[in-house]
This record gives sequence, C-alpha cells and structure tokens, in this order.
Amino acid sequence: MKRNKMMTQVLAGFLELLPKEQLVFDHLKGVIEETYKIFGFTSIDTPAIERSEILLAKAGGDTEKQIYRFTKGDNDLSLRFDLTVPLARYVSEHFNEITFPFRRYQIAKVYRGESPQKGRFREFYQCDIDIIGNGDLSLMNDAEIPAVIYTVFKKMNIGKFIIRISNRKLIVGLTQNLGIEDMATEVMRVVDKIEKVGPESFIELLKGIGLEETSINEIIRFVGITGTNDSIISQLENLGIQNPLFIDGVQELKKVIALIRNLDIPDEYIQVDLSIARGLDYYTGTVYETVLVDNPKLGSICSGGRYDNLADKYTDKKLPGVGISIGLTRLFSQLRDAGLITFDRSTMTKVLIVPMTLDMTGAFNLASTIRRAGIACEVYHEVGKIKAKIGYADKQGIPLVIFLGENEISAGTATIKNLKTGSQETVELSKVIYKIQEV
Amino acid sequence: MKRNKMMTQVLAGFLELLPKEQLVFDHLKGVIEETYKIFGFTSIDTPAIERSEILLAKAGGDTEKQIYRFTKGDNDLSLRFDLTVPLARYVSEHFNEITFPFRRYQIAKVYRGESPQKGRFREFYQCDIDIIGNGDLSLMNDAEIPAVIYTVFKKMNIGKFIIRISNRKLIVGLTQNLGIEDMATEVMRVVDKIEKVGPESFIELLKGIGLEETSINEIIRFVGITGTNDSIISQLENLGIQNPLFIDGVQELKKVIALIRNLDIPDEYIQVDLSIARGLDYYTGTVYETVLVDNPKLGSICSGGRYDNLADKYTDKKLPGVGISIGLTRLFSQLRDAGLITFDRSTMTKVLIVPMTLDMTGAFNLASTIRRAGIACEVYHEVGKIKAKIGYADKQGIPLVIFLGENEISAGTATIKNLKTGSQETVELSKVIYKIQEV
Repeated sequence: MKRNKMMTQVLAGFLELLPKEQLVFDHLKGVIEETYKIFGFTSIDTPAIERSEILLAKAGGDTEKQIYRFTKGDNDLSLRFDLTVPLARYVSEHFNEITFPFRRYQIAKVYRGESPQKGRFREFYQCDIDIIGNGDLSLMNDAEIPAVIYTVFKKMNIGKFIIRISNRKLIVGLTQNLGIEDMATEVMRVVDKIEKVGPESFIELLKGIGLEETSINEIIRFVGITGTNDSIISQLENLGIQNPLFIDGVQELKKVIALIRNLDIPDEYIQVDLSIARGLDYYTGTVYETVLVDNPKLGSICSGGRYDNLADKYTDKKLPGVGISIGLTRLFSQLRDAGLITFDRSTMTKVLIVPMTLDMTGAFNLASTIRRAGIACEVYHEVGKIKAKIGYADKQGIPLVIFLGENEISAGTATIKNLKTGSQETVELSKVIYKIQEV
Repeated sequence: MKRNKMMTQVLAGFLELLPKEQLVFDHLKGVIEETYKIFGFTSIDTPAIERSEILLAKAGGDTEKQIYRFTKGDNDLSLRFDLTVPLARYVSEHFNEITFPFRRYQIAKVYRGESPQKGRFREFYQCDIDIIGNGDLSLMNDAEIPAVIYTVFKKMNIGKFIIRISNRKLIVGLTQNLGIEDMATEVMRVVDKIEKVGPESFIELLKGIGLEETSINEIIRFVGITGTNDSIISQLENLGIQNPLFIDGVQELKKVIALIRNLDIPDEYIQVDLSIARGLDYYTGTVYETVLVDNPKLGSICSGGRYDNLADKYTDKKLPGVGISIGLTRLFSQLRDAGLITFDRSTMTKVLIVPMTLDMTGAFNLASTIRRAGIACEVYHEVGKIKAKIGYADKQGIPLVIFLGENEISAGTATIKNLKTGSQETVELSKVIYKIQEV
C-alpha cells in the first residue's frame, strides 16, 4: 500500500495524465503542430510570465479576476491567460524584424484561476494560429483558415465535425440598423446562447437586456435564417437592410464561402450559422466555431475569427489579423470522458531486448543497431524471471520482445516474440530490422 | 518608425526569439526529444504550478530565495524550479499506476528568479530523462545514459564533445577515510571548482573550509589522478584505500566504463574525470558532465547522475534512479553567442504559390495537393507587385516560388522558380510534387 508523507495530488483544476494518456495527448498535439506547419505557420515561444501592465491592458472583468498575479523584486508580474495578448506584444516589439503577413503558431500553456468545475482548467494548452497583416490583410486568409481546421480534425479522427462560419458585421450592422448599436455586445452574448437555452429563454434574455419588441423580432428573424450556405446568403441579400456594415458583412461572407469551395473541403463540413457571434472576443469580421456532430455537448472545439487591429494597446501600427485557437486540454479531457479516444500503450517503445547472458555486448550492440534504424528500443536491465520481463513489455504495451541467449549469440541470431499474436521466430541478426519493420 | 505605447520588451532574464532563431531552437529541442523516445523514454507533463509545500520540501538556500511564490485563494503556490521535484511528486502520487523501471522524459520550462546576468535565465527549458526503479535499479542503466548523451550531441552537430564520468562514492568514501565525512558536501563543492580556479586557489579554498594539510594532500592526490580510463581505474584500485564506500565506487565506475564499451560510443567521447562531483545536487553514485572540447567556456552542457532515493520527502517507497538534464535555453543562447549555430530562414515553408489571376481555384487546388504530400506550402494572398511577392519568399528563406498565370492554368502547368539558384522551369501540374521533392 502506498503511503504518502505529503499531499502529492495535483491542485484542483490542473490536468496531470498517466503515461498512456499522455501519449495520446502528445499525438493530438503533434497532429495540430504538423498541420500548422504544413500550412506555413512558424512557431514563436513567448514567456509564460509577462508584466501585469501588458496583460491587464487587454484583460477585463472575469479575466482580470482570474489572473495569477504576483510581485518579484520590483516587478508586478502575471501568468499569461491566453496567447493572443503575448502575440500582440511580440509583434509590437519585433515589428521591424518580422516579415508580414506574419503567420505564427504557438502551442503553450496558459493560466486562469477559475473556480474549478468540470471541463474548466486553471492550466491548459492553447494551440493558436494567427495571420497578421501590416496595414491590410486579404480576405483570402479568412477562407484558408477553415482548411487548417478541416485538416486538423480529419487527421485527429474523432468523428464527424462541422465548421460554422458567420461574420460579426452582420449582427453589429443589424443593431446599427435598429438604432441599438450601443447594445451590440450584449446582443451578441445573448445570440451566442441561443443553442444552449432554446428559443423561449432566448426571447426572455433579449427582453432582459432591455430590447423592445421591434428589435427582438428583427433579431429573431435574423438568427432564424437557415438553409444551405447559398440559400442563407441569398436570404441575407434579400432582407433589404441598407446598413453599409451589414452589406459589407454579407459580401465578405459570400466571398469567403466561395473561396472555401476551392480548398478541397467537402461541402458538408462548412455551415454558415448566423447564431455564431463570439461575443466575448474581440472579432470584427469572419467568425468560426467547430462542433462535433455526434457530440454537440462538447461545444465549440476550435474557435476564432478576424480582427481589425491586434495591438492597438501597444503600438500605433494597424495590424489586422485572423486566427483560431484549439483548447487542447479541455478537448482531450472531453474526448476521454466521452470515450472517443482509447489508450492501449504506455510507451512508444517498439522493441524490448531481454538479454539472457551476463555479457551485455550482444544486447547493447543490437539495441544500437535498432535505434540507428529510428526504432524505439529498450534493453531490460533488471534481474528477475523471464515472466516478469515479458510482463513489463505486456504492461507497457511494447509489441515485440527479442531474446538473446547463449544459443542465439553463438549462432548470430535473435529470437523475436510478437506479444500481440504470440508468434515467435528465430532470425539472423542481419534480418532483425526487417522483421521489426514488418510489424 | 515603430512607436510603442507601452513597454513591450520581455522582462530581463527571459529569452524571446525571433522566428529564424526559434526554428533552430525547435530543431535542437526536436533532436533531444526524438533521441529520448528512441531510447524508450515516455513523456509526462506536470503542471508548472505546484503547492509551495511540495517544492520547498526539497529546495533550500538559493533555490528557495529564487522561487516564484504567490497565493491564489487559500493556496500557497509556486512555479517549479526544476523537473526533478515534480517527477518525485508524480511518481509518489501515481505509484500504483506506473510500471517500473519508469523511463520518463519531460521537456518543459522551469522558473528561477535569479539576478539577471549573462547566461542566467529566469525562465528556461530543462530537457530531462530519468529511469526510476522500484526498490532496485541495475547499474546497466548508468551505462546506457552516456549513449543517450552521445546520440543527442552527435545529432546536434555542434562540435566535438566529451562525456566526463565519475562516481560520488569515491570522494565521499575518501572523506570518510580521512575522518572528515561531515565536510563531504563542502569538499565536493570545492572540487567542482578546481577547473575554474586552478590548483593554487583550489588549495586555498580547501584551507578555507577548514581542512588540515593531511586531508588537503589526500584530496589533491585523488583529483590529480589522470590518464586513460583504464589507467585511472587501476590507479584508484592501487591507492590502498580500504573504505567500503570508496571500494564500491571504484567497482561501480569500472563496471560502468566496461559496459559503455558495448554501446557503440567511440572511446574518445568518454573520459573518467575525478574532479566531477556535482556537489550542488543530490547524487549518490555515478555522475556525468558533458563539455564541448573547443568551447570549454560553455561549461557542462548536460549533467546528471545516480541517486539512491528520488522521493523520500513524499513517500516511504525506495525509488533509486539515474538521469540527466540538458538546460536548452542556456545552451542555445551560448551556441548563438559563440556563432556555433546559424539562422538561414524564418519559416519551414518550402513552397510559396503566387497566383497571377483573380480566380483562386488553381492556386488553392495546387496548395492542397502540395500539402497533402506533406510539404509545407503557403499561398501569397495579398495584393502587390510580383517583386514584393518574391521579396516575401526571399526574406522568409522560402526556397521555391510557383507562379500560376493564365497561360499556366490553361496549359495545366506551373512555373517553378528556385530562389537559391535563380533557375526557372515550367512543368506539368502532375510533376510539380516530384520537382519540389528534388530540391
């Protein structure tokens, strides 16, 4: 029985994984990183600690309360709560050394001291891409982002998903048209809730923020527009709303949807959805959410959008951008709880060499040969019975065990046992790599 | 001219890299991680924040002063200052779910609020491996660790290096033999300085900690033993020291050196060096340091050793282990300052597609094809002159630019320009991937 002398459990709200889980987590992280690279994004790695002044310039409300803030010497410091504010600082600081459009990815942990509850983490990975323009940024970038999302989740193989797209200019333009522009943020936050609360509560929420019936009806008419992507766009065009921002939003959405069709994404993965507003964020144009069709309870697993100006708090340069973020810690935890990922091994090791002689020459030589071929290999060093050694491979999920005894060594052979099939074969040393690669 | 509204520079003691530098940093990190995996180490990812109680149980002196400590709600929290204490907590907490020997790697940032000075960082990457036994751990593991070090630095290609090996039992046994066992730690810390301060100051330092002449002479005789590995070991055997710990140390060192010879490491990379003590650490047996032969000023670029008990502060289980750590942030910064690494591109993108038509179908289709082949590719989306577009590729270090104009599209071809050689060629679309892979 284990007896710990001190509380060794991780803190509430922190996710710590067993090796078998960590392997899958790392695999998903690898899929995201590889995809980001293939699309031409390059990595940056900002410090986890920033001046509080920098982080608080963009934070507010809940974020400010959640921030981990402390002093060290004369410095008022905080842990980053996202990767966007550090990006804004980075681009401002290194403006003259960066080539624009700047396509960066960053995959790193961020910190929010939230009340711990299911699915909320105080330390979690964000996996972000952003394309930052110097002054301008083509709408083609907005169209390419869904191709990145599509490639990531196709490779992850976690079930059917849909990328939902809208444009913030629509709902802000609509509020302008209704003369309730000062309510735009509140309206967007209520619109974001429509799927969760249902239509009746939705009306109550709109009343609750003080809207009149005319406005409520117009908003309901707007979010009620459904159909194919082309049909939604044509319905928007036919609404007769003359507000310039709204018209601009329709045109942008139309262009983005048309451009996406060239990007090798099957139609059913892209859905215009006017109930997407991302009201808590700083977006000003295209907005994205991604949902798993068979697991809608997971909510949006990848969100993002277009913004007019990344770093107005830090620089006078106008830096429009478009980006997305995947909250990998939350996604992993949800996929695990929903049984959508399985864990079948605790190591990437493919071969365990079990030496049967005191002289380790043969075992170490063979291990070196196998490793030089790029195959992960361990030598079992500890004393013990054969059964315990095979048991180690079995528990770890190592598929192949190689026995090297007196007979094998004098004959220049090795005996390979496949633990999955139970089959065993003695082969010449020169053929060992070939045999391993067959499995 | 840039005009920042707020101080956007990173804090003193924090390393933030430009994309071209980050690529090289990531490459070195990748070399380390791949090597660790090939040797059968599996990853864990502990939180950066721990209970202060956990971290302070093992810390002391300077470490405690340097720690980033803060409270959030009722929690007394600290940022980890190494990856060993979190490993000890992890193994204690998950003892029943771990298979031993536990071979784990962790590559992550740690935090120390040191006075900022050249080569000292407040946030830096440690790249650690450890093999933890349950009760026992074979000495063969001590022999395998240098094979990992050798493979990492060979692949890094940063110049000739030497792995120095000793055994702590020698110097502790020697102090026991001299009746100054209670001074063992002080003696080791002085021994660690011998290379830096030279022989005269070394004697002064030994006097300074209060040693008598007999002891000083014995210690000088001990660290003065040099020669080939076999010669040093035979000199140690012939010293006639009867202390059991010392004798044990000689035997362990002899076995480890003999085992290493089976591991495919050229002899000149391994050097027994009795001035290695790692006096600031918790080692109890084999100790390692690694130095660059032509850049000795960099100090040890990879250090580690064997310890009797990883987690005595957290569990009653006896957990012996052996491990190493590479301080990658410091190493990178030193390699950069010494001109041992060069930066020739700011992105991994291999191909930039420059569309010459308004219709993006061809460009987007070609980009998808190239990406599906696993080749990093961007489409240049912004408006501008051809020269500016090629200038973007040039500044980023992208080697290939593909032009897609009316002529190419109607002929089903693409024009590929190699920016390194200046050569340009128009090829059929079906041969584009092949042409790219040739470069």
